[in-house]
Amino acid sequence: MKALYILKIGGELLQDPAALREVLRAFAAISGPKILVHGGGREVTDLSRKLGVEPQIVDGRRITDAFQLDLALMLYAGKINTQLVASLQGLGLNCAGFNGSDLNLIQCKKREAAALDYGFVGDITQINVEAFTLLLNQGICPVLCSITHDANGQLLNTNADTIATEVAQALGAQYAVSLDLLMGPSGIMIDLSDEHSLIEKLSLERYEQLLAEGVLSDGILPKLHNAFSALKKGVKRVRVGNKSLIQHQKGTEICL
Amino acid sequence: MKALYILKIGGELLQDPAALREVLRAFAAISGPKILVHGGGREVTDLSRKLGVEPQIVDGRRITDAFQLDLALMLYAGKINTQLVASLQGLGLNCAGFNGSDLNLIQCKKREAAALDYGFVGDITQINVEAFTLLLNQGICPVLCSITHDANGQLLNTNADTIATEVAQALGAQYAVSLDLLMGPSGIMIDLSDEHSLIEKLSLERYEQLLAEGVLSDGILPKLHNAFSALKKGVKRVRVGNKSLIQHQKGTEICL
Repeated sequence: MKALYILKIGGELLQDPAALREVLRAFAAISGPKILVHGGGREVTDLSRKLGVEPQIVDGRRITDAFQLDLALMLYAGKINTQLVASLQGLGLNCAGFNGSDLNLIQCKKREAAALDYGFVGDITQINVEAFTLLLNQGICPVLCSITHDANGQLLNTNADTIATEVAQALGAQYAVSLDLLMGPSGIMIDLSDEHSLIEKLSLERYEQLLAEGVLSDGILPKLHNAFSALKKGVKRVRVGNKSLIQHQKGTEICL
Repeated sequence: MKALYILKIGGELLQDPAALREVLRAFAAISGPKILVHGGGREVTDLSRKLGVEPQIVDGRRITDAFQLDLALMLYAGKINTQLVASLQGLGLNCAGFNGSDLNLIQCKKREAAALDYGFVGDITQINVEAFTLLLNQGICPVLCSITHDANGQLLNTNADTIATEVAQALGAQYAVSLDLLMGPSGIMIDLSDEHSLIEKLSLERYEQLLAEGVLSDGILPKLHNAFSALKKGVKRVRVGNKSLIQHQKGTEICL
């Protein structure tokens, strides 16, 4: 089975140009099929405030109304995605930027308003494996932003970790997929202030134990949930960590 | 020789949602290989002003400093391009949004500062015919915004009419290319207030005559220059006009 490498980068890295440059250089140097997925960071909030609109955050989750969706399109699909592609092309990588509406790569359903209406947020219903395979077979590296669509003309905001994970799962039948989810810390640590407490391999058993002990911060839980889900659905390797993961193969590997 | 249809739409249409919808519907219904190229309209100026920055216009030409380039990325490659792609996907068209850095489709050289420094503006040096052909052969309709790159990591702003024309010329060796350049008026008219003065076929001879008579408005001259250049370089048919061109085949055909 052919190898496929999927790297997800987030806001921490996008706001650190020097570190980003290092990661893009390491990414471009990896041979074989690969996919880059990126989130957005704080730029949407910053631009919203500059335009005089305070974004609504409820229970730590952003409400994506029509205005916030426009800002997400502008920053995620516009500025950030194009700059990543141009940088990678500058490093000699044959890549192209996509969102879920391009080639109908990622189709979503707008999340139904329950107690809370998240607005234009999409939950993935379909990954176009054929289109991804076509791109990869042509030696094209897709650079995916966290925008999807409902296939009826509506664009939607979707979590970038979720996109990376679900694309990894969907392509797992055809490729031996390695998925690296980047974040601020260098991996899962018992004590975030002590690098020596880094867990090199986190098993499901140990994860459940740490969960019960309340050691893990809330912020890491969705990422770990995604990671275990990916492994259960056939992704070959999942790791979490920061730029050391791609530069020095140092971080936390998640294991069943 | 296989036919290829290239449609360029501009600000007038992008600011008229009902007319845009009609044009996209007509475009999606055209069978065979096709490419959509779009400009941006007044949105960059509007957003710049909302952010408290008055864009610099010298002799009618916009100066693209780093800030204005960011706005162009956000609006042309971000909001406008993604919404066009999502709308066309909603109409069942297999398309994907691209700028010149994607697949290195359109490579440019930053215009050298002479008496005036236009900033991050690119003049086209290379069209990646192979990549365009690959996309078209796969039944993918490229939706191109007016952003290019220098292949060294720098994104650049490039006129959308020029992109449409040069892509048409570059693909003219392999395809019988029809190029439609949309604008506000329904075609070239002797008297803009009189629809009956529409010139259905504008020959080079007649054009030079009208030029000498000073009948043509300054705004149309670059478009006509592009149109004649395209025909001379092997594009099969070039027309200028508004939505009537794609809906009713009514406008001005440019002829050598």
